[in-house]
Amino acid sequence: MGARYPSGGPSGGSGRRTVPEARIRQRRTALRGGSGSVAAVSDEQLERYRSSIDNIDAALIHLLAERFKITQEVGRYKAAAGLPAADLDREAKQVAHLRALAEESGLDPVFSEKFLRFIVAEVIHHHQRIAEES
Amino acid sequence: MGARYPSGGPSGGSGRRTVPEARIRQRRTALRGGSGSVAAVSDEQLERYRSSIDNIDAALIHLLAERFKITQEVGRYKAAAGLPAADLDREAKQVAHLRALAEESGLDPVFSEKFLRFIVAEVIHHHQRIAEES
Repeated sequence: MGARYPSGGPSGGSGRRTVPEARIRQRRTALRGGSGSVAAVSDEQLERYRSSIDNIDAALIHLLAERFKITQEVGRYKAAAGLPAADLDREAKQVAHLRALAEESGLDPVFSEKFLRFIVAEVIHHHQRIAEES
Repeated sequence: MGARYPSGGPSGGSGRRTVPEARIRQRRTALRGGSGSVAAVSDEQLERYRSSIDNIDAALIHLLAERFKITQEVGRYKAAAGLPAADLDREAKQVAHLRALAEESGLDPVFSEKFLRFIVAEVIHHHQRIAEES
C-alpha cells in the first residue's frame, strides 16, 4: 500500500519529491528581503499547489451542498414519520464503509471517521431543528 | 435565492416534499411492530436517500485523499523552505472564497467556514509534524 494521508510525514527522503535546492536558496533570499523581492509565500510552485487545493475545495463545497440537500429531505421525512434524528446503526455502518474507502484511497481512516462525525453532528442538529419545527 | 443547507428546516409545508400519508401510516405500523414487520429504519425511500448520501460520501473521501496528498507536498515544501506551517492570509482568502461558493450552491456559508477550519487544523497539524521530522 502507498503513502497514507494525513498520517505523519515522510519517513525518509526518497529525493523524488524534495524541493530543488535552487528554489530553496531563492526562497530564503526572498524571506530575508533579498534582491529578488519575491513575496515570501507566493512562489510559483506554492501557487500551483494552492490552485489544485482550491479546485478540490470548490468540488468539496458543491458535494457538501448536495449532501445537505439530501439530509434535509431525510430530516423532513424522519420528522413526518416520527423517526429519531440519529440512527446509531446506520452511523456505525457509514463509519465502517468510509474507513474502508479511506484505506483504499490512501486517506487516514481515523481522519475519515472524524470527518464523518463532524458532518453527521451537523446533520443531526438540523434534523432535531426540523423535528422541533414540525 | 433558493433554500440554503444546512440552515434550519422548512418554514412551512408546501406539500411538494412531504411524506405521503400512506407511507407514514405504514411506517408507524412498522415502528409499533405491526403486521408488516418492516425494519423500522429501512424503508425504500430512506434507502434511496442513503444510497445517494453514500455515493456523495465516497466522492468526498476520494477528494479529501487527493487534497491531503497535495497538502502533504505543501508541508514538505514549506519545511524544506523554512516556511511556517500556517498562513493566515491564505486562510482568510480561502474562507472568503469558500463562503462565496457556499452562497452560490445553497450551502450555509457559516458551515463552509467551519468545514474549512476543520480541514485546515488537520493540515497544519501535519505540517508541524513534517517540519519537526525534517
